[in-house]
Amino acid sequence: MSELRRDPIVGRWVIIAPERGLRPHFAKVEARKDSKIENCPFCEGNESKTPPEIIAYGAPGREPNTPGWDVRVIPNKFPALRVEADIERLGFGLLDKVSGTGAHEVVVETPRHDITLGELSEDNITLVLRAWKERIIDLDKDDRLRYALVFKNKGIEAGASLPHSHSQIIATPITPMVVKEELNASKEYYCEKERCIFCDYIYQELRDKKRVIYQDEHYVVLSAYAARFPYEVWILPKEHLADFQLVSDEKLYILAGLLKKLLGGYKEILGDPPYNLLLHNAPLRTPRPGYWLTVEEDYHWHFEILPRLTRVAGFEWGTGFYINPVTPEHACKVLKKVFK
Amino acid sequence: MSELRRDPIVGRWVIIAPERGLRPHFAKVEARKDSKIENCPFCEGNESKTPPEIIAYGAPGREPNTPGWDVRVIPNKFPALRVEADIERLGFGLLDKVSGTGAHEVVVETPRHDITLGELSEDNITLVLRAWKERIIDLDKDDRLRYALVFKNKGIEAGASLPHSHSQIIATPITPMVVKEELNASKEYYCEKERCIFCDYIYQELRDKKRVIYQDEHYVVLSAYAARFPYEVWILPKEHLADFQLVSDEKLYILAGLLKKLLGGYKEILGDPPYNLLLHNAPLRTPRPGYWLTVEEDYHWHFEILPRLTRVAGFEWGTGFYINPVTPEHACKVLKKVFK
Repeated sequence: MSELRRDPIVGRWVIIAPERGLRPHFAKVEARKDSKIENCPFCEGNESKTPPEIIAYGAPGREPNTPGWDVRVIPNKFPALRVEADIERLGFGLLDKVSGTGAHEVVVETPRHDITLGELSEDNITLVLRAWKERIIDLDKDDRLRYALVFKNKGIEAGASLPHSHSQIIATPITPMVVKEELNASKEYYCEKERCIFCDYIYQELRDKKRVIYQDEHYVVLSAYAARFPYEVWILPKEHLADFQLVSDEKLYILAGLLKKLLGGYKEILGDPPYNLLLHNAPLRTPRPGYWLTVEEDYHWHFEILPRLTRVAGFEWGTGFYINPVTPEHACKVLKKVFK
Repeated sequence: MSELRRDPIVGRWVIIAPERGLRPHFAKVEARKDSKIENCPFCEGNESKTPPEIIAYGAPGREPNTPGWDVRVIPNKFPALRVEADIERLGFGLLDKVSGTGAHEVVVETPRHDITLGELSEDNITLVLRAWKERIIDLDKDDRLRYALVFKNKGIEAGASLPHSHSQIIATPITPMVVKEELNASKEYYCEKERCIFCDYIYQELRDKKRVIYQDEHYVVLSAYAARFPYEVWILPKEHLADFQLVSDEKLYILAGLLKKLLGGYKEILGDPPYNLLLHNAPLRTPRPGYWLTVEEDYHWHFEILPRLTRVAGFEWGTGFYINPVTPEHACKVLKKVFK
């Protein structure tokens, strides 16, 4: 059984998950480019190699756990957290822990082994986004859970342990520290000014223009002002909205088009780099009811996409500082071309 | 010229350093094990390949920038920050920046190419620790600087770009976010209880015993309770002390012995893993004088040593959570053997 532990000084939570040590390290065979691979648990036809699916989008009348799907969501075979675990919150002096209650799911983005998220059609990417949305809505019903993180690791250097295109959802029984910092900062700003800090940031960037890669009626694609990584990009909805799961399907389709352009641009310009994609979303709930009342007004969902061209080392761990050798203004100029 | 930028939402600082893009990527030749390598700027005899040294410990009467040294401190050839840069702090609406004023130094830990820090003699490791101490004392004289971070990246996966054993010192014109969190947390605890949180943590761990790898009169070696990485170890002085630079030379010698044992243990048990070593130290100064008055009482210097056996990916970036597949209690049991 895994458990969550809190660092007694800074309050950073860690998942101690001894079972994860058993994971096969598949990543080293990533070079294979067949459209289907016999041993890959995510390939069409290998549905029996995974735990039973949670949801799947596919041909009408398809039986669960058989071929014929476009996107398939399954429990992680080596989960960091489990829904079956009873929730238990314990303190011993300075040392706090919580049982490993939560969810750890995998969104298989395509039945094909040889294709990346950015190479899928806009319709297919929309299905991936719909799966994220649908799973957040479902996980939200479990009131032991505080936060659902949606993320994608592409490439070994970005932490992917299986090469077949997929993303992950981890739902945790506490609000993670980095999320809390963002929530606290935006709440403080709102209390002071009665405006959303993300809305103000978007407004300033649109006026200043230097880091705006693209905008349309609904979204803005920004080269992040304080980018941690070269070519780090944020995609934000122009309309103020705290929860990703409230985005309409039409707007998901537009978002899918932007993601396709961006990921295609990375491939063209940076040579298919490893990257992490993170959905920054409002928490499912927090233990402070007074807080929950305002999060809809002060938080603003968005994507952060971090190409992993530089290595994170001691300096970054020790300080929370990052060293980025590419100016965000230069990255903007370069990436603008792919949105033309 | 590099500059520091603050993320407008969470306040995380980033160094935008376009010149760093020019660094040679030497790391790929790490496999070579000769005692001296012709092109290595850190090897004895190649002193002219680096900027002029700042300090060096060696044979009496040795001329600067010639062979005959044991430890040599030089400016980084591709610095993220520079002392020559005038300090300028600017805000434009939500967007803050500071000029890239600071220092970026390299501590070459041995004249030999084929030896690691853990393989050096205790006397030699003591010289490395003395160099760190001496450089912090000197950097502290520049009142534009707020923090001096001492760190070591060992191995490519830990971010080392040159294989020859070395550590680095970066002094920054703002207090880094991660440091601030630690300082704020320990200050809050002190205000509440009039005790140092680190002292209390050490006391609880010594009573509980489960994660104490080793202790002597002066130091305690702990398997961290909420370890981010397998076999993460903290070394803390038992005596309450905020500043590493105030440690006596005798106590540095004892510390060198503990480091040697720990690094030797990593090599023996984990097969010479990549690691990051971080000195968590009190800031040189902070802009809040009221704060500065108490940091001596509420902060406690220590080392954190993080073997890099697992990969950090989207989940970690998105949440500040880490997933660690090895329990700290198991790590403690294993590492205890090397301290016998």
